Amino acid sequence: MVTRDHGDVGDAPSAPPPLHPPTNSARPSAAEQARTIAAANNAATLATLTSDGDPWASLVAYGLLNGAPVLCVSNLAEHGRNLAANPRASLSIVTASSDTDPLATGRITLAGRVTPPAADEDAARAAYLLAVPASRFYLEFSDFTLWVLRVERVRWVGGYGRMDSATGEQYLAAEPDPVTPAAAGAIAHLNADHADALATMAQVFGGYPDTANAVCTDIDRYGLDLRVHTPRGVAYTRVGFPEALSSAGQLRSVTAELARAAAQA
Amino acid sequence: MVTRDHGDVGDAPSAPPPLHPPTNSARPSAAEQARTIAAANNAATLATLTSDGDPWASLVAYGLLNGAPVLCVSNLAEHGRNLAANPRASLSIVTASSDTDPLATGRITLAGRVTPPAADEDAARAAYLLAVPASRFYLEFSDFTLWVLRVERVRWVGGYGRMDSATGEQYLAAEPDPVTPAAAGAIAHLNADHADALATMAQVFGGYPDTANAVCTDIDRYGLDLRVHTPRGVAYTRVGFPEALSSAGQLRSVTAELARAAAQA
Repeated sequence: MVTRDHGDVGDAPSAPPPLHPPTNSARPSAAEQARTIAAANNAATLATLTSDGDPWASLVAYGLLNGAPVLCVSNLAEHGRNLAANPRASLSIVTASSDTDPLATGRITLAGRVTPPAADEDAARAAYLLAVPASRFYLEFSDFTLWVLRVERVRWVGGYGRMDSATGEQYLAAEPDPVTPAAAGAIAHLNADHADALATMAQVFGGYPDTANAVCTDIDRYGLDLRVHTPRGVAYTRVGFPEALSSAGQLRSVTAELARAAAQA
Repeated sequence: MVTRDHGDVGDAPSAPPPLHPPTNSARPSAAEQARTIAAANNAATLATLTSDGDPWASLVAYGLLNGAPVLCVSNLAEHGRNLAANPRASLSIVTASSDTDPLATGRITLAGRVTPPAADEDAARAAYLLAVPASRFYLEFSDFTLWVLRVERVRWVGGYGRMDSATGEQYLAAEPDPVTPAAAGAIAHLNADHADALATMAQVFGGYPDTANAVCTDIDRYGLDLRVHTPRGVAYTRVGFPEALSSAGQLRSVTAELARAAAQA
């Protein structure tokens, strides 16, 4: 990745570096992050081209057919007419967040072209209905058309300074993170009941032996994101699991094992 | 407005009609709704054109300069490069909602062209900073550019079956609803403590004399939206205020006055 210069005028916050490299900072790829964000939501903003070639942003609901977004739009609506005339489209999907800074949250853009679902029509309709139950009231309206977005390229932004691109093939081959649906509960539990274990993990595995306390900010199948408070300032680090989890049910045992290993180090 | 046919196959929900016309169903115009939605948020999805002319949807934060959205984007980001090469853009802003149906919420599209703020640069920067306090960390970075979206046309969708368009001039001339910031609290109070008064208002002013109970679903400077439960089914109606409110502080007295007038009718 090319590092480019923000021309920082010096007032941006800076974080103290780790005192040794984190033991295991495995993370989901951009394609995995994108599949996970797409799977966790059912609303997006669609960009289409108007008859003048102008970009048109509008809210849509979507389902997923093996990762490909399925849309169901009315040809009475501008975006419906736009797609019927020109299949080029992209979809922005934003992770819901309670952060007051809207740009701190994860989001993706999936860009490509829409096509009719053709042989997949029943599966596409079922995928949309599963994600958007209220669509039972309009799916069969004669002015509504099902479209499948054939994803050609993907941009993922995880928040400030975390971003990467993926191809449509990488996106379709990736798996949504199985841990994500349980992440909020697990994060709350770790922070409420296991603060000492998190601090020890950050000291031993996270590269911050001077951690005073640590807060878990995210969990995925590859590990934990920690915000560490040190006498040198606040930093962010990563404690990876020994191997990627295949289900959220493994979270409890793998974090307990990491805590034991850290305590014994 | 032209009524067009959904080709309803007969399974969509239907609402019983009022038994007489509502006394006063004044509502905000599309331009007012759009100004209100824009003023209540600071995150949007921007649609721009890529170098290939494809539509590109991406999350942005925004401020408002007399209603015109102010963006601050990095030219290291795709949308930043897109705007620098082609000023055509639109912005989709969606009202936050806890409804499980993502299409039940209000949203707008503001379409036009971006320009540099020129003589308004200080005011544009201040407007962005006010709406997005975290931008103090990047507003002065050399790769960030301020843009003002010159709104040429507006599409407002209030939810199912409520939608209209406005011109850029109408949008800029409209005022954000002064009642909206206090609406959630007022709705909760009316529903918790004044359910009988709401039912009487629906019976007397809403056109549903057979109302068994009524729930306030929204409030704006022009009146109340009510969901009424009748032996004939569930319907939605409107009870307008005698005149438009100029501040949220008038809500208590005007609703009390409406309740008294309904009880005496």
